[in-house]
Amino acid sequence: MKLATYKDGTRDGQLVVVSRDLSTAHYATGIASRMQQALDDWGFIAPQLQDLYDTLNHGKARHAFPFDPAMCMAPLPRAFHWVDGSAYLSHVTTVRTALDIDLPHDTLATDPLMSQGSGDSFVGAQADMHCANDAVGLDFEAELAVITGDVPMGASADDALEAVRLVALVNDVSLRMVAKNELPKGFGHVQSKPATAFAPVAVTLDELGDAWDNGRVHLTVQSAVNGRKVGMCDAGADMAFHFGQLIAHVSKTRPVRAGAVIGSGAVSNAPVESNGKQEWPKGASCLIEKRAIEMLLDGKASTQYLKAGDGVRIEVKGKDGQSVFGAIDQTVVG
Amino acid sequence: MKLATYKDGTRDGQLVVVSRDLSTAHYATGIASRMQQALDDWGFIAPQLQDLYDTLNHGKARHAFPFDPAMCMAPLPRAFHWVDGSAYLSHVTTVRTALDIDLPHDTLATDPLMSQGSGDSFVGAQADMHCANDAVGLDFEAELAVITGDVPMGASADDALEAVRLVALVNDVSLRMVAKNELPKGFGHVQSKPATAFAPVAVTLDELGDAWDNGRVHLTVQSAVNGRKVGMCDAGADMAFHFGQLIAHVSKTRPVRAGAVIGSGAVSNAPVESNGKQEWPKGASCLIEKRAIEMLLDGKASTQYLKAGDGVRIEVKGKDGQSVFGAIDQTVVG
Repeated sequence: MKLATYKDGTRDGQLVVVSRDLSTAHYATGIASRMQQALDDWGFIAPQLQDLYDTLNHGKARHAFPFDPAMCMAPLPRAFHWVDGSAYLSHVTTVRTALDIDLPHDTLATDPLMSQGSGDSFVGAQADMHCANDAVGLDFEAELAVITGDVPMGASADDALEAVRLVALVNDVSLRMVAKNELPKGFGHVQSKPATAFAPVAVTLDELGDAWDNGRVHLTVQSAVNGRKVGMCDAGADMAFHFGQLIAHVSKTRPVRAGAVIGSGAVSNAPVESNGKQEWPKGASCLIEKRAIEMLLDGKASTQYLKAGDGVRIEVKGKDGQSVFGAIDQTVVG
Repeated sequence: MKLATYKDGTRDGQLVVVSRDLSTAHYATGIASRMQQALDDWGFIAPQLQDLYDTLNHGKARHAFPFDPAMCMAPLPRAFHWVDGSAYLSHVTTVRTALDIDLPHDTLATDPLMSQGSGDSFVGAQADMHCANDAVGLDFEAELAVITGDVPMGASADDALEAVRLVALVNDVSLRMVAKNELPKGFGHVQSKPATAFAPVAVTLDELGDAWDNGRVHLTVQSAVNGRKVGMCDAGADMAFHFGQLIAHVSKTRPVRAGAVIGSGAVSNAPVESNGKQEWPKGASCLIEKRAIEMLLDGKASTQYLKAGDGVRIEVKGKDGQSVFGAIDQTVVG
């Protein structure tokens, strides 16, 4: 099923069930008013939401209304846990090779690089992006995330995978010039991560069909700035750690609770060899990687970071060609 | 006033008002059932809680009951934002000097070192501490934290200070051997921070009287392991960044929302010179710093990290000699 949260003036909004084709929606009133409530008691609430979803898809929900993505907050408007991975190693290696930065650690391929964030500054798919000025290097980062149920401390990757409740599409907005000064401190991202945006709906695994395979989403993440393609990256192929492994990493020394949001990191594909040269036919899911590719190919970056007035669009289409999560469609304000 | 959250089998527990002397309590039912609810709508709810608090302190609350710290969850059992500072520079410099680690950055005294955590693994004052084995280096870290209201992006330190709603006492449990491998990656603490414990009650600023001065708490944080003193550190004297500055640092590029928990980092006092030698008469608020002091004084650390069966007690007494927050009193389990 597909779930969203409608703005209603409160901090947590109103849980709505959205039809598969994103055309209609229905308040989940009477089942659960807030997304966190559904996640806290998923076993009891999810089947009721599923019944409503089925009715809605059959066009038989009595109080259905046209679905408006502009009305959406993040599907989970605030989360008690937000942690982002760097599961696509080509993102890390391409960027750091181009910028001549040491790789963060020599066990990159065996020990997931992850970074805690704050769950109180999530925004909806059409929220403005702030912080645009030359000094900060405003960038988008297109990625997938899962929202979990309870995961006990020390869970295996397989068990952790069983706790995945929903999949979401995320713009992990980043300030590259701020990160450049912040990361060398060793304590992770604080100022370098502004409000994180989410596509309108989060979906259960069955919505992905066989595109969900063992903790990876085998679909293309489309990213564009001002209507021009930045990337058409395959989210499945080069994800070095699947979501179960990422969750298990986080829950190694503490339990992870219902409603935790675990991000994949910027979706990226490894370069391919062509006539003895490296190429990146699928582009990138963020501007820092696009700039890094330009530097490796041309000796200098021609793409600039985001500026006021720019539009960022991120979307994932299913194998049937329909939008899975709805689109992230944000405008940068000064 | 003093507020706590009683266990009731739910994830968020029940908000209770606790008398100033921690002897009696009263459910806040009818005013607010959960702490986050009070924080979300503080201007409306706080005066009602204050009325109940006054009635309770006068012994006139009709349904008052004896307060039992063992019944407490963390005052805010789960938080949408948990970020910890390193506001006591002597903690950082003593530890890193002893261990011969480079200081994290050359602007330590002007740019707060802070680290995001997860708000879904908070526990109560008497919860067991896990993860004890020689490989991880289980340690406590006694510190203060504030719980905020809404803070707009770009707030000044003075304005941020106005958003402080409550002060809490925290055991920021740490795995030192895990951190040793994790921090060099640059992405902060993930596995090196297990469940964080909170003293039973959080208090409003007026409870601290003139011990609250311009964003700092001028009281002594007492730490002991197995009944033996580890530290009697003054939380006010050497706090390089006050809580308003810490909050402003976090909210520079995004808003911070009601219920954010901002930690001070391990309370620490700078060494004093005596007969040409450095001494640490106030001890330390964590074992890694105690070990560092031993190394600097004796050439080797004699204190071991926590092991199963050890007891950790952390408390702050007010100028009247009464416990301000109640005690953190945890036992380490294997």
